[in-house]
Amino acid sequence: MKVIGDPQKLAKITRQISCKGKSIGFIPTMGALHPGHLSLIKQAVKDNDIVVVSIFVNPAQFGPKEDFKKYPRPLKKDLALCRKAGVDLVFLPAEKIMYPQGYSTFVEAGELGAKLCGISRPGHFGGVATVVAKLLNIVAPNILYLGQKDAQQAIIITRMIKDLNFPVKVKVMPTVRQKDGLALSSRNIYLNNEQRKQAPVLSKALSLAESLVAGGQRDAARIISRMRQLIEKKKQAKIDYVAIVDLEKLESIKKINQSCLIALAVRIGKIRLIDNTIISV
Amino acid sequence: MKVIGDPQKLAKITRQISCKGKSIGFIPTMGALHPGHLSLIKQAVKDNDIVVVSIFVNPAQFGPKEDFKKYPRPLKKDLALCRKAGVDLVFLPAEKIMYPQGYSTFVEAGELGAKLCGISRPGHFGGVATVVAKLLNIVAPNILYLGQKDAQQAIIITRMIKDLNFPVKVKVMPTVRQKDGLALSSRNIYLNNEQRKQAPVLSKALSLAESLVAGGQRDAARIISRMRQLIEKKKQAKIDYVAIVDLEKLESIKKINQSCLIALAVRIGKIRLIDNTIISV
Repeated sequence: MKVIGDPQKLAKITRQISCKGKSIGFIPTMGALHPGHLSLIKQAVKDNDIVVVSIFVNPAQFGPKEDFKKYPRPLKKDLALCRKAGVDLVFLPAEKIMYPQGYSTFVEAGELGAKLCGISRPGHFGGVATVVAKLLNIVAPNILYLGQKDAQQAIIITRMIKDLNFPVKVKVMPTVRQKDGLALSSRNIYLNNEQRKQAPVLSKALSLAESLVAGGQRDAARIISRMRQLIEKKKQAKIDYVAIVDLEKLESIKKINQSCLIALAVRIGKIRLIDNTIISV
Repeated sequence: MKVIGDPQKLAKITRQISCKGKSIGFIPTMGALHPGHLSLIKQAVKDNDIVVVSIFVNPAQFGPKEDFKKYPRPLKKDLALCRKAGVDLVFLPAEKIMYPQGYSTFVEAGELGAKLCGISRPGHFGGVATVVAKLLNIVAPNILYLGQKDAQQAIIITRMIKDLNFPVKVKVMPTVRQKDGLALSSRNIYLNNEQRKQAPVLSKALSLAESLVAGGQRDAARIISRMRQLIEKKKQAKIDYVAIVDLEKLESIKKINQSCLIALAVRIGKIRLIDNTIISV
C-alpha cells in the first residue's frame, strides 16, 4: 500500500493504471474509519483491480462553529485498517495542498444543498461537492463508493457527477449499524454513556416509520408526528428535522405514493446525529 | 473531422486517444468563429496530435437581459472553418444534453467572478466556469486554449483548473485585432457603420495607457482618467469600467509597480465591447 500526498503524483499513477485497462474504485473519507467505511472498501476491493482511499478532513465542509478542529484523526489506526482491507493507494494530502493561498473556486450544490441538513449547515454540501470534485479529478476512478448513511450527500454527489459530466459510476452502500440500531459515524465517539443509550432513538424512529408504512399509513405528516413523539421522549434529544422527501429534488411529499427518503437529524446533547431510510414504492 | 453530440461517446474516444499517448488540444467556443478562434485552433494543431473544438452557446453564462437568443450561430460556416483549420473532433451538444431537467450543480468563480465584467454581468463567470468544467470532464484534454481578449475569463478558468485539480495545461493566446485595433469578437457584427468607426476607441485607450506607462507614468488613477477622457470623446461610447488590477486577485492597484491588467468594457450604442492589455513589470 502506497501513501501519497502529492495530487499530481497520484493523478499520474491513476492515469497509468486506467490506461492499462485496470479499474479503480475510490472511497473518499475524512478518516476515523469505522466498519461503515470498511464496507465500502470491501465492496471496492471486490469490484475493482485497484482501490484508492483518500483521508482528508475537509475544512470547506465544516461551519465556523462546527467540530473541524476536534474531529478525530487517528491516522495510524486508519492506515492499518486500509492496509488490512486491501487498499492499494491512500491519498493523504495536506490542507495547504488542497486549498492553497488564493483558492477561490467552489462547486455549489444548488437547491439540493439548501434542504434537510443544509438548513442548519449552510455551505456544508458546497464544501463536500467541492472536495469530491477535486478528488475525482485527481483520482479519476471508475467507481465512487458512498455510504447511504449520508443520503443527502450521496444524492448531491450523484447529481454533481451527472451534471458536471464526471466519467465515474456511483455505488451507494447500505448503512452499517450497531446491534441496537445506531448508525455508525465517526462522531459517535463524542457520545457519553447516557447519550449513547439515547442515540438509537434515531433508528428506532425510522423503524417505526417503516412499520407504519408497512401497515398502510401513507400520510407523511402523521408518520413524522409519530416519529417526533418517539424521539421527544428522550430527554437529551433535540430534533433538528424529521422529513419525508422525494429522491430527486429532496422536496417534502405529503403522501407516500412514490419512493422516498425518510431522513432525520437529532442532537443528542451537543452531538448532532443523522440517519435515514429509503421507502421503495 | 467528426462532429459528435453525445458527451459519453466523445469522452470514450478522447480517453482512448490519451491512452495511446497522443496529446489532445481543446478550444471551447460558442461558435461564430473568427480569426481569434482560428489562432487558438492553429496553435492547438501545432502543439497536439488531436484537436477538439466545442461549439455550444452556453445559456448559463448569459444574463436574462443579454443576447443569448440572438447570439450568432453560423453553424455551417463554423464547421467549414474547423475542417479547413485541421480540427479532428467537433463537440456540438444540444442544450438539453448539457443542462438536462433537474440540473442543479454550478461552479462558482468566487470573488474573481464578481469583479470587472462580473459587476455588470452577475453570474456570468459562474456560468463560464460551469460549462468549462463540464467540457474538461468530457474532453479530458492535455492543453486548453483560451484567448487573451477575455482576460478575466482566462484568469478565472486558469484558477478553476488549479483549484479543482483538473489535469490540464492552459495556453492563453494573444488577442487578434483588425487593422484599426478593434479586438475581434463575435459580437462585432452587431455594430452599425457609425458604431464600427467608434469601436476602436477601446484599443486606442489601451495604447494610450501603454504609452503613458512607457513614458514613466505609474499612477493608475491618472492613467484611467486619461483613458476615460479619450473614450468619452466618442458620442456613442458609454463606459462600463476602466480598471487597472493585479493579475491574481483582480484587485485595483494604485501604482504600477507590479505586472498588471488594464481592462475596460465600453458600450458602443447597445453593444458591450471589452478589451485589455497586460503590463509586464
